[in-house]
Amino acid sequence: MTSSATAVSLADLQADLHENLEGVRSQIGRAIAADFALIGDVNSHLLRMQGKMLRPTLLFLVNRASGSLDDRVVRLAAVVELIHLATLVHDDSVDHSVLRRGMPTINSLFSHQVSVIMGDYLYSRAVIELVNLADLKPLEVLGRVTNEMTIGEMRQLLAHDPLTFSEESYDLLIRAKTASLMSGACECGALRASQEVRLAMARFGNALGMAFQIVDDLLDFTEVEAVTGKPTGHDLKEHKVTLPLIYALPRLTGPERSDVTALMATPDPTPEQVARVVEHVRAAGGLEYARARAQRLADEAAAELQCLPPSPDRELLRATVTFVMERRK
Amino acid sequence: MTSSATAVSLADLQADLHENLEGVRSQIGRAIAADFALIGDVNSHLLRMQGKMLRPTLLFLVNRASGSLDDRVVRLAAVVELIHLATLVHDDSVDHSVLRRGMPTINSLFSHQVSVIMGDYLYSRAVIELVNLADLKPLEVLGRVTNEMTIGEMRQLLAHDPLTFSEESYDLLIRAKTASLMSGACECGALRASQEVRLAMARFGNALGMAFQIVDDLLDFTEVEAVTGKPTGHDLKEHKVTLPLIYALPRLTGPERSDVTALMATPDPTPEQVARVVEHVRAAGGLEYARARAQRLADEAAAELQCLPPSPDRELLRATVTFVMERRK
Repeated sequence: MTSSATAVSLADLQADLHENLEGVRSQIGRAIAADFALIGDVNSHLLRMQGKMLRPTLLFLVNRASGSLDDRVVRLAAVVELIHLATLVHDDSVDHSVLRRGMPTINSLFSHQVSVIMGDYLYSRAVIELVNLADLKPLEVLGRVTNEMTIGEMRQLLAHDPLTFSEESYDLLIRAKTASLMSGACECGALRASQEVRLAMARFGNALGMAFQIVDDLLDFTEVEAVTGKPTGHDLKEHKVTLPLIYALPRLTGPERSDVTALMATPDPTPEQVARVVEHVRAAGGLEYARARAQRLADEAAAELQCLPPSPDRELLRATVTFVMERRK
Repeated sequence: MTSSATAVSLADLQADLHENLEGVRSQIGRAIAADFALIGDVNSHLLRMQGKMLRPTLLFLVNRASGSLDDRVVRLAAVVELIHLATLVHDDSVDHSVLRRGMPTINSLFSHQVSVIMGDYLYSRAVIELVNLADLKPLEVLGRVTNEMTIGEMRQLLAHDPLTFSEESYDLLIRAKTASLMSGACECGALRASQEVRLAMARFGNALGMAFQIVDDLLDFTEVEAVTGKPTGHDLKEHKVTLPLIYALPRLTGPERSDVTALMATPDPTPEQVARVVEHVRAAGGLEYARARAQRLADEAAAELQCLPPSPDRELLRATVTFVMERRK
């Protein structure tokens, strides 16, 4: 798919949020500062590594669109992004990843030890920030979310056997791993709204987060490496089973299934092996199925926005759904 | 040193606490329960691995001795022990330790991945437990403590160069790594006491915790392995610099210093190498110095108890100080 005239960019969504997002960056910098050289070094690297700020963006837009203006939004968004950062540091350590956002990961640049400790450092700083807000509500939301994310990570460890990993398990995995924090970000944006709106925003974030992860998993099948021209297929290379393969597997012929089994049994599959399995999954309708599933979740997310009064910010939240569905990376 | 008639056992300290400690065990079991088989497996192992419960014991004794009876003590003590458990799981993963309390560590029995995620799981459950107590005070104390512990772990990573690691750095390390949680446990036992008593109990826990860690580090020099008859010297083998060596180093002759340098440069030092360095440290007065330092801290801890009214529980806290100084393992 090429970019269309209706494409939404992150810049569109964040056009009016520069000051807030700058505030998030400076709050994070303040929250993680330490009088200890090694931590300072890791912090500088983390601050340079900062990503799209999708979760803070959601929190800000929800807060505005729900009309429940909360003067703590910048600090809340900073904590959400800080928790996200902590989980990335531990995820990279668990996965032994070398690159993140085109930069070396903490585990590769420093060490496995530093990244385990640093994730704990960031997470405990997030708790301190929340305690300083002197309100148990965001602590309750984000404590629960953080715990769900660890269960998601645990599920991820077991998502390597295509014969036993079901769509139901996949749903539980992406809900815990990805949707929980997006849901928590949206809920934190609506802490001062009515309970009805707060819960609708939590459901919005959950459906959006699930759609986000399915699109992410799809991109792994559809993205093509610039050099080889072959599918990226990082997940397949690491034997991670995602929705397109789950759908396709029972629909494959005997020889096609053998290709899948062989790939899963190979510690370091070749680009050709990966390309062959991607082709089988595509031919069996796995990509189409996953795309349709993501679209249904996106529609569910958009429907939750109906409880908000019409406003430009509500339309930006709707545009966020489009952005999540259309993004290429 | 052989055991003397005045020796205090843990059983003496906990004689009146069986019900409370049983409560802690069952609260921990409840708090970490998960509807997910892998987490359940790790939990069963963790529950079998439970240790001396020194921190809950301190919390209970402080609570009684300060006369500020708090009906949340069992839940608070369970959270303190849960945080302790979480840090042990991550520490073992960072250190690649194989055994803990005579049982296989999570990283050795399951995997490095499982232990990183499981530490996060336990810690986030601790936060949820604290949120359920609906009081920001313990969250503030234990959030701060948990963050200090990560800084202690970071300092530990750098404690491998005897030429640059000073007594001042060592103090900062043991305060953050060990004393902070003991201090937090004692402070949590006095949350409903006057601020004066609460702060005195925090200082009591800090001094006791520092003494505890120095004794721990001393035991590594004085304990002898049953089979070889040689000093255990785990820390030296892992090139961890502790107080006895810090004191001894500037007092060693040229050839003795070379033995230290050679050991630090050897990835896997022999028992003979370790025994030689232990002997140098002993001859230079390193063990005596560390013992005296621990005793001063123990006296400081005992002095903080003066702000409490005389009671059998205050005497048990005093006995805890004796226990920490006299323990052999």
